[in-house]
Amino acid sequence: MRIEIVVIGNELLDGSRVDQNTAYIAARLTEIGAEVVRSVVVPDDPRRIEEALKSALLSADAVVSTGGLGVTTDDRTKQVAARLVGARLALDERVLARVRERFEARGVPMPQVNVSQAMVPAGARVIDNDHGTAPGLLIEKEGVPLFVLPGVPVEMKAMIDGYVVPFLEGRGLRRLSAVRLVRTTGIPESRVAELVEPVAPALVRTELAYLPSRAGVDLKIVTKAATLEEAVRIAEESAERIAERLEPYVYARGDQTIEEVLGYLLTMSGKTVAVAESCTGGRVGWRITRVAGSSAYFLGGVIAYSNALKVSLLGVRDATLSAYGAVSEETAREMALGVRSRAGSDYGLAVTGIAGPDGGTPEKPVGLVYVAAAGSEVRIRRLRFLGGRDAVREHAAQAALELLRRSLLGIAEE
Amino acid sequence: MRIEIVVIGNELLDGSRVDQNTAYIAARLTEIGAEVVRSVVVPDDPRRIEEALKSALLSADAVVSTGGLGVTTDDRTKQVAARLVGARLALDERVLARVRERFEARGVPMPQVNVSQAMVPAGARVIDNDHGTAPGLLIEKEGVPLFVLPGVPVEMKAMIDGYVVPFLEGRGLRRLSAVRLVRTTGIPESRVAELVEPVAPALVRTELAYLPSRAGVDLKIVTKAATLEEAVRIAEESAERIAERLEPYVYARGDQTIEEVLGYLLTMSGKTVAVAESCTGGRVGWRITRVAGSSAYFLGGVIAYSNALKVSLLGVRDATLSAYGAVSEETAREMALGVRSRAGSDYGLAVTGIAGPDGGTPEKPVGLVYVAAAGSEVRIRRLRFLGGRDAVREHAAQAALELLRRSLLGIAEE
Repeated sequence: MRIEIVVIGNELLDGSRVDQNTAYIAARLTEIGAEVVRSVVVPDDPRRIEEALKSALLSADAVVSTGGLGVTTDDRTKQVAARLVGARLALDERVLARVRERFEARGVPMPQVNVSQAMVPAGARVIDNDHGTAPGLLIEKEGVPLFVLPGVPVEMKAMIDGYVVPFLEGRGLRRLSAVRLVRTTGIPESRVAELVEPVAPALVRTELAYLPSRAGVDLKIVTKAATLEEAVRIAEESAERIAERLEPYVYARGDQTIEEVLGYLLTMSGKTVAVAESCTGGRVGWRITRVAGSSAYFLGGVIAYSNALKVSLLGVRDATLSAYGAVSEETAREMALGVRSRAGSDYGLAVTGIAGPDGGTPEKPVGLVYVAAAGSEVRIRRLRFLGGRDAVREHAAQAALELLRRSLLGIAEE
Repeated sequence: MRIEIVVIGNELLDGSRVDQNTAYIAARLTEIGAEVVRSVVVPDDPRRIEEALKSALLSADAVVSTGGLGVTTDDRTKQVAARLVGARLALDERVLARVRERFEARGVPMPQVNVSQAMVPAGARVIDNDHGTAPGLLIEKEGVPLFVLPGVPVEMKAMIDGYVVPFLEGRGLRRLSAVRLVRTTGIPESRVAELVEPVAPALVRTELAYLPSRAGVDLKIVTKAATLEEAVRIAEESAERIAERLEPYVYARGDQTIEEVLGYLLTMSGKTVAVAESCTGGRVGWRITRVAGSSAYFLGGVIAYSNALKVSLLGVRDATLSAYGAVSEETAREMALGVRSRAGSDYGLAVTGIAGPDGGTPEKPVGLVYVAAAGSEVRIRRLRFLGGRDAVREHAAQAALELLRRSLLGIAEE
């Protein structure tokens, strides 16, 4: 089944906003075996919306549009869609009652302008909106379903998951493909490719994609088969073969983040951790605490951005700072040991580095980072990252989390 | 001048990646007065690439494509573009030398497969790539320029800024429109609209857009005029009128983040700050240190996720925690005062709250947050945020930064 997506909104074509909707819709529909063959972004211009919807309806087996369902004069999608199927807009009392209820729940009378949201093309089915006032619509044109959804991501996502996917599954679309992710960190993409290539030809019915980001290189494994069970089995075998080649750089076989993996490992082992951050300024703590329930194993820590706080809050010795500098193996070690002792945690995790753009020297260039994890032993890694201040700091936080993962698992450093 | 964008890549249509390129290109071209009328995402399929490029070349005054210039067999854009103009690919020795040099600089011999990157359609102009190996191309078809750019954002951006924009300016495209941003925080979009609407009709040649995000509501003001000077003058007048209506919620008139504004205010006043974070887990520190040079005014702080660390590292009294709880005005006050005193900073900035999903009670529901700023006086705000753990934590960090901004400026709390 070939799907086209039509995304509507001026804000996406003047650079004000990035279109996040296409990726979400594409992911969900790819999962059930559909193929997204095109996504078109057009402005809030009835002529361009009509052109895009017409062209999509002619060439695809189903069309999903998002955007242009609000109450401002810029929002034209519904009128265009009605015209395309030759239907009139008529007031739907049930929809009107729902819109009015939403306002009443907030203690606000419904503005008159919102009545337009209850106007529905004759013959269209209404997709209820549990997160906003604009209902979605399902309109069919010569057997091709057109899903007209709002552009607000939370509203659109609920309709994709709750209506569009089940509808297409009801039309016989079934999940005959499986996706597995093998997530690595600390290894460059070219090296990942070298390690994977020898086994790739032997992976049957498997498509491989390399997805590099600041968190590392993900391998996406997509398999297709005659049954879902078969596709899943093949995907798991392929993931296994690939993961074996990439140890010890694999931190997850699935879509978990490294902080989620750490949450699991710390919970299972009953251990706690505290952080001491210099160049990352709080990012390691922020990431660890993205996981709900992290208070069970994360105690907190110190953002020791200045040298004075490294001394007063972490107990780093003045002599260490003056002999080796703030960005050194010795300081990283004392930061990790210091925060572990002051927080009374099982592990202390430290980062110190030069994020730039200033502060680099020939001996200690911008991008030099030390990470240290103090548990039953102290592990320290010296790293060098490129790509500017943000990139260096994100890579540094990821490297710290990875060092903790390896410490918890007792993986030997190479 | 009407522009179409063609974005090429399977990874954008199976949900692996969000297309960030369209927004960047659209922003830069809108700035110089071009109108982006469509952006199409297609897979690495020569037939679909050809169809998209053909259709764009027929209806637009200029076309920009990104993606599909790598050396893997999936990358087909160049072949398709050559076919479209009836040109053959021929080896360009200068490009080959550049590609080889890039490998040599990294101490790696050039793989044979990279020779394909030096194949250029006859008659095309080469756009040098300073960040990677795939050159960009400028091909003209019946007077319509087609810019064929790589999909890697850093490479694409350098070519847009260094080649495409100057080229289009050379074709008479001039910046006759001006953009200004008025950024607010701590005020809902509906209230922003109520305040702005009475003055909006009086703003000549001004288009207004509301851009809500977790940082607050931005107003984007776009003006067009016969000259750039005129457009800029009108935009500034409009921004001024709008900002007046929205005081004291306006933290920037431009694209600065609140942490950049704080960097300016702290530097100008010669003051320093330290943070004490509970539910935000380090996000406030991370955001402050995103600004290069923040070490001049940011000393660091404490991530006091556990109550024990609130006591041991910040000096919050046990009695306060047991009488009022960790999420209370009193604890927020002691956290802010504690970190200010221990870090020896001029300001102490604290956040404590219930991020959820668990831990809420009827009296203290999920989303309840206290922020405190201790300077010459202590300011405390009680807030309630909705939208899940991530949203609550991001809103809380923004509210803390905003409280510090108001403290530094002596803006009275409403």
